[in-house]
Amino acid sequence: MSADGRIVGRGWTQPGGRPHGEAMALAEAGEAARGATAYVSLEPCAHWGKTPPCADALVAAGVTRAVVATGDPDPRVSGRGLDRMTAAGMTVDLGLMAAEAGALNAGFFSRILKGRPLVAWKVATTLDGRIATAAGESQWITGPEARTMGHMLRASHDAIMVGVGTALADNPRLNVRVSGLEERSPVRVVIDSRLRLPLTHTLVREACEGGRPPVWIITRTDCDRSRHDALAAAGITVIEVPHGADGRPDPLRMTEALGDRGITRVLVEGGGELAASLLRDRLVDRIHWFRAPAVMGGDGVPAARSYGVQELVDMAAFVRLDIRQLGPDLYEVYAGTAVVTPGG
Amino acid sequence: MSADGRIVGRGWTQPGGRPHGEAMALAEAGEAARGATAYVSLEPCAHWGKTPPCADALVAAGVTRAVVATGDPDPRVSGRGLDRMTAAGMTVDLGLMAAEAGALNAGFFSRILKGRPLVAWKVATTLDGRIATAAGESQWITGPEARTMGHMLRASHDAIMVGVGTALADNPRLNVRVSGLEERSPVRVVIDSRLRLPLTHTLVREACEGGRPPVWIITRTDCDRSRHDALAAAGITVIEVPHGADGRPDPLRMTEALGDRGITRVLVEGGGELAASLLRDRLVDRIHWFRAPAVMGGDGVPAARSYGVQELVDMAAFVRLDIRQLGPDLYEVYAGTAVVTPGG
Repeated sequence: MSADGRIVGRGWTQPGGRPHGEAMALAEAGEAARGATAYVSLEPCAHWGKTPPCADALVAAGVTRAVVATGDPDPRVSGRGLDRMTAAGMTVDLGLMAAEAGALNAGFFSRILKGRPLVAWKVATTLDGRIATAAGESQWITGPEARTMGHMLRASHDAIMVGVGTALADNPRLNVRVSGLEERSPVRVVIDSRLRLPLTHTLVREACEGGRPPVWIITRTDCDRSRHDALAAAGITVIEVPHGADGRPDPLRMTEALGDRGITRVLVEGGGELAASLLRDRLVDRIHWFRAPAVMGGDGVPAARSYGVQELVDMAAFVRLDIRQLGPDLYEVYAGTAVVTPGG
Repeated sequence: MSADGRIVGRGWTQPGGRPHGEAMALAEAGEAARGATAYVSLEPCAHWGKTPPCADALVAAGVTRAVVATGDPDPRVSGRGLDRMTAAGMTVDLGLMAAEAGALNAGFFSRILKGRPLVAWKVATTLDGRIATAAGESQWITGPEARTMGHMLRASHDAIMVGVGTALADNPRLNVRVSGLEERSPVRVVIDSRLRLPLTHTLVREACEGGRPPVWIITRTDCDRSRHDALAAAGITVIEVPHGADGRPDPLRMTEALGDRGITRVLVEGGGELAASLLRDRLVDRIHWFRAPAVMGGDGVPAARSYGVQELVDMAAFVRLDIRQLGPDLYEVYAGTAVVTPGG
């Protein structure tokens, strides 16, 4: 928020989603908001939630202009925020840095428009697409720079998802281990059709000790009740989802269950079976591919198990968004070719 | 070659290796060579071959200074070219653009220092390292820009090598199909342990018609004599090489056999078995990796078959030299970590 060429207030939406960024910036600006211009990455809201509508708050504070990067597809807002400001005599400019705002809000948009979080698949492979040796050795295929970026990715998602096979094989803690970002560790989600995760597993023990971040298990609706209750008693949220023909929780239903619980971005970290089922159902919105300059050969564990590609046209296709060098490795970012476009 | 700030002659080594670039430039410069400076990418030769030594020719023409990018490791030259020029009173400066000259001469250096050509592996895969569907469909994983670059690569090598499996499956012509570069089609080499290539194959028919470029087959020393003679009668050069424990012609011996026949750069185009054997024996000096933005899944054909990697440290490791975008695809160039360094 600026007035007379000076920034009078800054704000961003707080953890949990409230207060919104506008309220934070207005609180900092105080009286200086009168006559100021507000720059917002998303259309100010028009509905009463835990707080009054931000569009009204901007008007009431005397802000005279709003520069809005992108509209809010939430049906409770969707143009109404802009309308309220215009009706109150404010100048409203829409579209500055719309692409950047679309990327920033991609998870939120996905949840609003598709009822599920943005699904990002993170994978670290050799040049020939292998995530581990035949014997299961995977630490470390990529270098320390790539691993740090992997932790940064965790910090920018609100859930991490792995299959139970990966949880059992690697006994991972799935938290953020980058100095200063430990508090940003997302919810840890394990897909476990048959509730195989033992009560002695690191994740269960951490949940039992009331550990943050929370641990959720997604399983079938016909899961073993005693296992279910034991895990729930250990502090784990057990989410039951109908299963598909392969006997596993249906991937779309899984992601919708996460969306219902407020998750807007989920980072899928393995293994190859989980990745394959998400690719098959065209649920992979982003890929974060870390690639080490080595070749493992055909007996290495593949990044994605087979998912029914009969012909080349059956493949899940992507568009490259970014590519960077991380030490000796490459870091490539891809978007699914059927990705939500903001407002589209 | 320049004098008084003006280029007085240009030349490059002619197809077949003679005349050398110096002789060509001197012929163009004529009398203007007197007092001129010669810029050469490789130390002028000091030995009598089909032509007199270039070092002597430069001296005789009155050239007073030579700027030499890199020394020639050929034991018949190796410093003697520089010495002859210095002894004759010329000024000699060594090392300008040595890295570029090293790359330009990498194939020649490999043949001189290792007795075998530089081995470059060209591969076109999905993100997860697959070269074809389970059913064998591979045309086209990458786009037209990548395919054109593939033909450019052929034009900059003097042999293309494929396994007989690839030759049988794809019936490839293995020539350069880029307008203006058709004449640069390299020798076509098929590795065929059991001489399975039928006389009706495109490559055999082209050889039979006296077609350029030549077709060579590398097989075992104990190959079937009647097949051998039939292929030879069809105009194919059949090269016999001792086989290894896997029953196939030994990879190092194969490459040495190509070096003996003057090949300095060989482009390996498949398939996964041949790539695996070259990786296993650490013979891959370069990789040209074309990567399409799609994921095929675990039943796709791997870029390289298994070659005995038990632990991560067993992997063939590479250093990235270049990366480019080619339409939707990536083109990455790697060097083996045990590559010949010029003069090293």
